[in-house]
Amino acid sequence: MPGAGRAAGVRRLRPQRPEEPPAREDEDLLLAAAYVSDAQYNRNVPFETSPRAIRLYYFYNHWTMQVAIYFFICVDLSLALFEEPALFPLPFLATSIAEVLCLTAFFGRLVHFAKVTPQMVFWKDTKNICIMVTIVLTLIDLIIYGSLEAVNIHSIRWSRALRPVFLINFPESRQIRRTFRSIRNTLPDILYVFLLFMFSVLIFSLMALKLFGVRSLKTVEGLPYFTDILEIAFELYVLVTTANSPDVMMPAYNFSRWYSLYFITYIIINTYIFMSVFLAVVYNNYRKHLKNEILKLAYLKRRKMIEAFNILKVKVGTEFVVTEAQWKRLAKIVMPHISSPHLELLLRISDEGQKGHVDKMNFLRLADLLNIQVVAINIKRHPLEDWMPRVYQSSASLLVQRMVRHRIFVWVYDVIILVNAIFIALDEKKPFISNAEWLFLSLYIIEILLKLYTYEPRAYFGRKQFWNWFDTLIIIAALVATVANATIQSGNYNSQQILDIVLILRILRLLRIIVSIQRFRLIVTTLINIGPTILTFGGLVLVVYYVFAIIGMEAFQGKVWFFDPNFTTPEAQVCGNPALTGSAFARDHYCKNNFNDLASSFIVLMELTVVNHFALLAGGFALVTHQAAKLYFISFHIVVVILIVNIFIAFILEAFFVAYSLEKSEVETAIEKKIQELGVGVQEEEMQDGKLIDNMDAKDSGFSGDDGDNKRKALKGLYFRIASKKYRTVDALLQQMFESEITPEDEGPSLDEILNLSPSDIYPKNPSFGNSA
Amino acid sequence: MPGAGRAAGVRRLRPQRPEEPPAREDEDLLLAAAYVSDAQYNRNVPFETSPRAIRLYYFYNHWTMQVAIYFFICVDLSLALFEEPALFPLPFLATSIAEVLCLTAFFGRLVHFAKVTPQMVFWKDTKNICIMVTIVLTLIDLIIYGSLEAVNIHSIRWSRALRPVFLINFPESRQIRRTFRSIRNTLPDILYVFLLFMFSVLIFSLMALKLFGVRSLKTVEGLPYFTDILEIAFELYVLVTTANSPDVMMPAYNFSRWYSLYFITYIIINTYIFMSVFLAVVYNNYRKHLKNEILKLAYLKRRKMIEAFNILKVKVGTEFVVTEAQWKRLAKIVMPHISSPHLELLLRISDEGQKGHVDKMNFLRLADLLNIQVVAINIKRHPLEDWMPRVYQSSASLLVQRMVRHRIFVWVYDVIILVNAIFIALDEKKPFISNAEWLFLSLYIIEILLKLYTYEPRAYFGRKQFWNWFDTLIIIAALVATVANATIQSGNYNSQQILDIVLILRILRLLRIIVSIQRFRLIVTTLINIGPTILTFGGLVLVVYYVFAIIGMEAFQGKVWFFDPNFTTPEAQVCGNPALTGSAFARDHYCKNNFNDLASSFIVLMELTVVNHFALLAGGFALVTHQAAKLYFISFHIVVVILIVNIFIAFILEAFFVAYSLEKSEVETAIEKKIQELGVGVQEEEMQDGKLIDNMDAKDSGFSGDDGDNKRKALKGLYFRIASKKYRTVDALLQQMFESEITPEDEGPSLDEILNLSPSDIYPKNPSFGNSA
Repeated sequence: MPGAGRAAGVRRLRPQRPEEPPAREDEDLLLAAAYVSDAQYNRNVPFETSPRAIRLYYFYNHWTMQVAIYFFICVDLSLALFEEPALFPLPFLATSIAEVLCLTAFFGRLVHFAKVTPQMVFWKDTKNICIMVTIVLTLIDLIIYGSLEAVNIHSIRWSRALRPVFLINFPESRQIRRTFRSIRNTLPDILYVFLLFMFSVLIFSLMALKLFGVRSLKTVEGLPYFTDILEIAFELYVLVTTANSPDVMMPAYNFSRWYSLYFITYIIINTYIFMSVFLAVVYNNYRKHLKNEILKLAYLKRRKMIEAFNILKVKVGTEFVVTEAQWKRLAKIVMPHISSPHLELLLRISDEGQKGHVDKMNFLRLADLLNIQVVAINIKRHPLEDWMPRVYQSSASLLVQRMVRHRIFVWVYDVIILVNAIFIALDEKKPFISNAEWLFLSLYIIEILLKLYTYEPRAYFGRKQFWNWFDTLIIIAALVATVANATIQSGNYNSQQILDIVLILRILRLLRIIVSIQRFRLIVTTLINIGPTILTFGGLVLVVYYVFAIIGMEAFQGKVWFFDPNFTTPEAQVCGNPALTGSAFARDHYCKNNFNDLASSFIVLMELTVVNHFALLAGGFALVTHQAAKLYFISFHIVVVILIVNIFIAFILEAFFVAYSLEKSEVETAIEKKIQELGVGVQEEEMQDGKLIDNMDAKDSGFSGDDGDNKRKALKGLYFRIASKKYRTVDALLQQMFESEITPEDEGPSLDEILNLSPSDIYPKNPSFGNSA
Repeated sequence: MPGAGRAAGVRRLRPQRPEEPPAREDEDLLLAAAYVSDAQYNRNVPFETSPRAIRLYYFYNHWTMQVAIYFFICVDLSLALFEEPALFPLPFLATSIAEVLCLTAFFGRLVHFAKVTPQMVFWKDTKNICIMVTIVLTLIDLIIYGSLEAVNIHSIRWSRALRPVFLINFPESRQIRRTFRSIRNTLPDILYVFLLFMFSVLIFSLMALKLFGVRSLKTVEGLPYFTDILEIAFELYVLVTTANSPDVMMPAYNFSRWYSLYFITYIIINTYIFMSVFLAVVYNNYRKHLKNEILKLAYLKRRKMIEAFNILKVKVGTEFVVTEAQWKRLAKIVMPHISSPHLELLLRISDEGQKGHVDKMNFLRLADLLNIQVVAINIKRHPLEDWMPRVYQSSASLLVQRMVRHRIFVWVYDVIILVNAIFIALDEKKPFISNAEWLFLSLYIIEILLKLYTYEPRAYFGRKQFWNWFDTLIIIAALVATVANATIQSGNYNSQQILDIVLILRILRLLRIIVSIQRFRLIVTTLINIGPTILTFGGLVLVVYYVFAIIGMEAFQGKVWFFDPNFTTPEAQVCGNPALTGSAFARDHYCKNNFNDLASSFIVLMELTVVNHFALLAGGFALVTHQAAKLYFISFHIVVVILIVNIFIAFILEAFFVAYSLEKSEVETAIEKKIQELGVGVQEEEMQDGKLIDNMDAKDSGFSGDDGDNKRKALKGLYFRIASKKYRTVDALLQQMFESEITPEDEGPSLDEILNLSPSDIYPKNPSFGNSA
């Protein structure tokens, strides 16, 4: 066997002695399980291999610890809601005690980590240094602020902007860190494009100054048009965001038709070409670095699996293998809740020849195998069939079942939903319409009941039957909402929030139409699949928003006030700040767009991300403070819109292409084929023809007539299917693509080499890698 | 030789007889040259092979004919400027005569084409049918409109919207057609996403109606907020374009903070995710179909070259080859103006062993070889060196030359340009500043003179020395502009346009800074390289704009009038239309954004493409006509922003990635290597270290000291270098990538198979193809 010859040369952590005492063997197993578990979840924390350290490491990775640390991070971040300027004010003492508590928790986590990882590695890791420095800085800031506050001097809580450091730097936030790294790596490339872009804006500004500055034109507000170079540069920068088009052009265009050429040229060059080049540069770097990182991960995973193999291997014949018993114990440690039929299935796949041991190649796949979610299908007949077979099999009952399974049944209900939509749009004051509501609801409930009559209920509500659950939950929610609505209207209870939620729930039932149109389901499934990574972006955006919100609150709090719309005092008209008199900010009633608390700040930042009326918002805050405030808004635009939104788009593009190539990829089929060979009916949740239940049903009855099947019996009447393709995220797929390029014998470069891989190292080696979609 | 064995089995168009009369041989050569020329320019017109048809085909492809047809297309399209509603009104008789003339020209071109191409092919081609139908329809429309006009009934010139058909359907507009095809192919995929997107907008509209409709909120204009479902759907559609953010949210947000969640959810789902998915779908399809089309082209090119080879081949030994004399005659027919050293060079490359004939493999490359632009470098000493060697080689002169070549020289001039920029920004009324102008100009002229003193002038102004030309032209333009400016100011001549152009020319000199920063030059070179294809997009946008402008003019002409800004009559305040009273359209002085002539329409459409204030423009035109007018604006948004702008972005992304992989690609080096082997100093214009002239100079003098070089002598003292990488457009590069996958023996599938290739056919065959950047 190819692996055996080289395995002897591999550095082994500890020699394997068959006469070892059981305790020793248990420790070995624990260590191996730690490696496998790390490989399964792509954790890359180097840990000490002493038994005590391993136990600590298990504890470190335990879910309660992770939940606890995230809880403290949440508490720490949300402190900004309670500190001045506060949404819900709390005394400084309360927030500072909470903050110190959080810092203690972070420090504790760090100490725990230091005990687990080798000393050298710990101190070389910038993440840990970052956390420690931030803890110290925060404490210093707290002390200074607290003592100044005690003598009634108001200073700035600058360390609050550092809080996202904790979110970024704990090992659990690998994804967010990766995105940050990808931004950092993009910067050098984007810098020159950005300089050239700024140069182009400058040239155009000079032209505008010379062309329009002398014409004494007026803007629509009656202000001088294009007379100050800085003002022009800002307006032209805003034009790149399109936020002041076509207003910025109108005075010149009104003066002469030919001046529109200037603006058209500007828009083509700067708005279209430069912005596309930004996207291209960001996307290109994103892809490059993503693949680099994924390759790293794949190599690291391989290394860990080899470590685990070397710990457990015994020699059988000429080959090093892991015995079946050891393998089973290992799998049970890694995945304590695995069912024994599932374990049996995995063993069958790993030990093809049923030789009683698992060879190296198959062992290396264990982490991936554990990642594949399979669900057991318990093949049972419909309970009604057991209970009253005569009635259930009667011709009338069979007719009902055939009817429910028919396409037209789905169509009829689609039409009903559409009619329902029209009724919702109509005025519900009329009794006819509010009564119709009950009719629709009963129709939906009848549908569910009919389906449960036709399909086996436990199969219908299988653990991974996403769309059935979705459908049923929507109907139940609508039922609850309608009942609640009726109760509220009959009584005099009138809570605004409850009423709104009820309304939304009633409308959400229209989403049922998605369930019945296959193409819609496919799109939604794809979107749900990339959901987890979109959440990573949520984390990234949260970090950037938080930092900008804290800075914004320090700079702009209390400058703009919101008054009730019914107030018409002159003060309310200018948002409580006379500097805004006559400004577009006040004219458009933007007073609530302020930085007076964290929630408001986030909403303003969201509006800035959408970019429209960017200039109006920036202009308003510049009026109440200083023109330099516009720099805050421009830097937010550069960071969020030019960098992060482009990375987001790049990510969606990449995810989409991967999902597309997925349809054709054969990466997964090797394992799927094996499951099929074992005769356990592999099926996927996303059936091509959209009739999952029908198919499953057909398959089930097919099996029912084939009771003599040996393999099925061996697996105790259970069938497995791959739960979903959800594990096929962009990362997972890319990783598999790389892994399929690493031969089983290849143990990859050394650890240092892996960690220092750069994109340029990869590409010459894998010239054919790419999304060949 | 590998090709020889199989060549016998190839279908031959006509048997090759050595005893053929010379006339016959000439015809053969002409036919072969037609094939090669078609391969060179990627023309794919099937033509008859009779001698008369070939001559007609040559005439058909002659550049005068192409220019003539484009001239008539331009005239036809620009007729809209002179027809009612006209920018420059002309009587109907004049425009209709011009139109009939154009139609005659188009018909003539079509008849010419019909004589060239086989009858069957001609009638099967939808392009030709399209043109004929359009000609007939236009004539019918002209007659109806003319006769109605004669009896003073005003009708609609609907056929004007069909004019772009001519631009699209003549064989020369292959690129535009391809983009249209790519849009058409994208439609099915995008349709379901679009439906789901509209469904989502509908659901959100219903929610908005229920949540906000009953609250009797008011917009900032005091209108009811979110009470009508159609109004809401329109507002929410506009929110996807971000054009009414955050105004649309403010009334609800002012009412309750929690309602912002509704809008944030909406924006995340519809603006960010759905719009990115649109880009992804469009991009994915663009790539897929682009590669499909490119593969087709590559196969068709290969076929044509094989046809040409089969016509000219003779048997030498066991191998079919083309004799050197035939090969030279062929090359001279295809490229009449080729210099004999250049021809000699190509022959050397094709006939490696100097065997007196060219084998099949090398012959097939001929079309590509002809596409590589090489420039001859005449190695001569500096004329001053010839004229007065003592002075030019004196130590003072050498010091000057060394100084000019030094990095610091460039830096000093960069600083001068920056200082100049500051002076331009300052007020030029002061005499100090206007005198400084002359100082800067003389400094620039001194720079050019010094460079010409140091470098050989003919090399400095070489045909492909883009950046030197650019630099010099800018300085000359600035000189002319400054002189003109001084003349104008001293005299009392005061033409606005001239003054503006002069101003722009003076500012453009700042572009010189790009020349001296290498990274900027690289970016600009890349942008210039993708320029031709961006022009294709210009054509596409022109077509769509034209159709929408014609429809817009019919629908909205005369509804909105522009009055001079100094007019303050009530009529001028509402753009001459009382329906606009109190509207934002009138308030923001948008009166000049109207459809009263073609130029104005184009500018409005441009503003709609930029999207901002989309709702304001659409709302204005809906007020003066009917709410249904918004459909016009929404459909424009879908066609231009969702489809075309996304394709544009996709194209820029693709071009960028190709340019990126270009740096590493080895596609071209095979030929480059051969040129190098022949000792003719291949250099590329884009040197890595930015010191082209220095390097060239060094190389030149290196050669000067090596006079005994045989090969150089053989090429009569001329050196060649590859002119630039400009021929490496996206298309060309992709084609070469595919070609490198087609083995020389592979003659590709049959013609019908090629034409029916679909993307799904390609990918399984070339799984490794892709942008591996």
